[in-house]
Amino acid sequence: MQPSQALDLSGERFVVVYHLTGAAAEAAAKARDICLEQTVEFPDELVPDGDIRAHILGRVESLEPLANARFAARISYTIETAGFELPQLLNLVFGNISLKPGIRLERLELSPRLLRAFAGPRFGRAGLRERLGVPQRPLLCTALKPMGLSATALAALAHQFALGGIDIVKDDHGLADQPFAPYRERVQRCAEAVERANQQTGRACIYMPNVSAPADALLDHARFAKAAGAGGLLIAPGLVGLDTMRQLADDEQIALPLMAHPAFQGSFVTSADSGISHYALFGQIARLAGADASIYPNYGGRFSFSHAECNSIVEGTATPMAQIKPIFPTPGGGMSLARVAEMRGSYGDDVIFLIGGGLHTHGPDLVKNCRHFLSLVE
Amino acid sequence: MQPSQALDLSGERFVVVYHLTGAAAEAAAKARDICLEQTVEFPDELVPDGDIRAHILGRVESLEPLANARFAARISYTIETAGFELPQLLNLVFGNISLKPGIRLERLELSPRLLRAFAGPRFGRAGLRERLGVPQRPLLCTALKPMGLSATALAALAHQFALGGIDIVKDDHGLADQPFAPYRERVQRCAEAVERANQQTGRACIYMPNVSAPADALLDHARFAKAAGAGGLLIAPGLVGLDTMRQLADDEQIALPLMAHPAFQGSFVTSADSGISHYALFGQIARLAGADASIYPNYGGRFSFSHAECNSIVEGTATPMAQIKPIFPTPGGGMSLARVAEMRGSYGDDVIFLIGGGLHTHGPDLVKNCRHFLSLVE
Repeated sequence: MQPSQALDLSGERFVVVYHLTGAAAEAAAKARDICLEQTVEFPDELVPDGDIRAHILGRVESLEPLANARFAARISYTIETAGFELPQLLNLVFGNISLKPGIRLERLELSPRLLRAFAGPRFGRAGLRERLGVPQRPLLCTALKPMGLSATALAALAHQFALGGIDIVKDDHGLADQPFAPYRERVQRCAEAVERANQQTGRACIYMPNVSAPADALLDHARFAKAAGAGGLLIAPGLVGLDTMRQLADDEQIALPLMAHPAFQGSFVTSADSGISHYALFGQIARLAGADASIYPNYGGRFSFSHAECNSIVEGTATPMAQIKPIFPTPGGGMSLARVAEMRGSYGDDVIFLIGGGLHTHGPDLVKNCRHFLSLVE
Repeated sequence: MQPSQALDLSGERFVVVYHLTGAAAEAAAKARDICLEQTVEFPDELVPDGDIRAHILGRVESLEPLANARFAARISYTIETAGFELPQLLNLVFGNISLKPGIRLERLELSPRLLRAFAGPRFGRAGLRERLGVPQRPLLCTALKPMGLSATALAALAHQFALGGIDIVKDDHGLADQPFAPYRERVQRCAEAVERANQQTGRACIYMPNVSAPADALLDHARFAKAAGAGGLLIAPGLVGLDTMRQLADDEQIALPLMAHPAFQGSFVTSADSGISHYALFGQIARLAGADASIYPNYGGRFSFSHAECNSIVEGTATPMAQIKPIFPTPGGGMSLARVAEMRGSYGDDVIFLIGGGLHTHGPDLVKNCRHFLSLVE
């Protein structure tokens, strides 16, 4: 093919670290294949000389053996190929190769100019702490459940949780707009219940309704929540799209803290050989997509994340990414009050502890159970 | 807990078939766990008696051993728990359990009343054939590439493809809104080039630009494409959200055929033990979400799908789902003209053959290569 025209490129590149299975030759072939597959998607011999071959094509910067019979490939891309937008950035770093086994996206090393295209979380750790009036200790979160309760019953629970000292009362992520607790009625009642409790306690508990709604209703749901007094929003980017969460975070009128729920994202992390690392998915990518808190299943709960994987998520929530703020790791899933001391030892103070069912099993009085939860971190 | 109030439920349930790893006792425990995890997300002992326990909770309808040391669990859910919307349906059938290993969503058996909530593909196989004026043979598709070419150069390619007899000329899915070929200029030039070719040939080739754009720009991009004369749209639901594709399909003003691209969806299918089956993801779910054609990597290409997996996708694109139309399986990825005869033997006529780079390697004259491609199916 003839050389392509000269392209007006910045010359800035960014790096993605992939872990590749296979012996040295196979890993090297995989790395070269990624460079083609993720950019020109063309057989090597057809790639035009000139700027396309020199700059558009991905580039293997290094390939190093790892301890576990894998290789770490650092592959760089020209920032313009990412289009300065999240869907194409995700596509560039893992679109087609998500379909090829033995390639795991391990870490993003985005360059300053590319990072400037993303506002990231609006609040981050510091902003959320300020909203809640909690400068230092771990934040406490619980979920309204079970599905099937009426809006009135859920609001009664919300009131008790807020009275007891929970900082964030969120919808269970399965609460959508079902007939037994319709979205608008639920949001109005729960926001009101939490506000009433705040007036009793002097605290600043916030209610986060679930806005993982159909695409045509989602922003309306968020605006309704804001008007009703909700102090934040729960959203599952796996269900509605990572860039939809980003849109919500960037919306100047809505401007509420966002908590990301991992529903439907598990397949990215269930294989050690393929997919996306916990660090990148629940840390870096959640931040790029505007989450202020990132929920994930805690080690030792009813899911299967290891302690090391959870630690890597914590790292991903705070690793330097230019102006993109650090966010709260939010371990949950089968947690109990009995584990809070140990979890605090592991996570320290910059964490949101999400305890759902475990708050109900501790004793018959929910308010008391919440007070006990609070006493464990104060 | 006290019995819940009586809920106003239809009594209609639908079934999801999961494949579970493990011996009989472990599989049975997994099946029971799914019933809790996906609905009430509460410890069993806390689930209120009454309608919540009787109806909201998932129910194991059967558990049967499979040949490969797995079990097939048929689990039913009350249709109201799915909220009659796609994000919550996806959440209900696979949200949290995507995070648990050894559970694979194999097949959806949605009930009539739940299916009525979804319009599905606007065109389907018959509607797309009518648009293209091709009543019987396989449809031919190619992609504009490589990334880095200008809008003018891409339009020149589009013109040649359309002249040669390609039915659908789509953007490569990595073409977003990059500076080297900005979206609007590209769409205008390529739509015009295809229309010019149609006037020369008397054919009805359509151009499908890639609208996998940021959430705030996507519908505008689609409307712009329609106004510019694009005959369809390419969208990657893994990048922008399945329900965003559904929204696009349901939009009465846009009303264009949609081709779904599998970028960023591969992690759902890379493990045989976890994730979602090829049949459900690229067949049933793509249809529920409004795709008229579903792209996936063909067996024997540069990806790793097996022949059996590809056959299962074909089944999923046409299995009866009430009013939801059958759609076109669209195998691609490293295909060549040399394989068309064999692929036709496997796929028959109701298929779209997507050949990208392979059309360029066949010989120096693109128009001739396309004519040859067409001659292989006419």
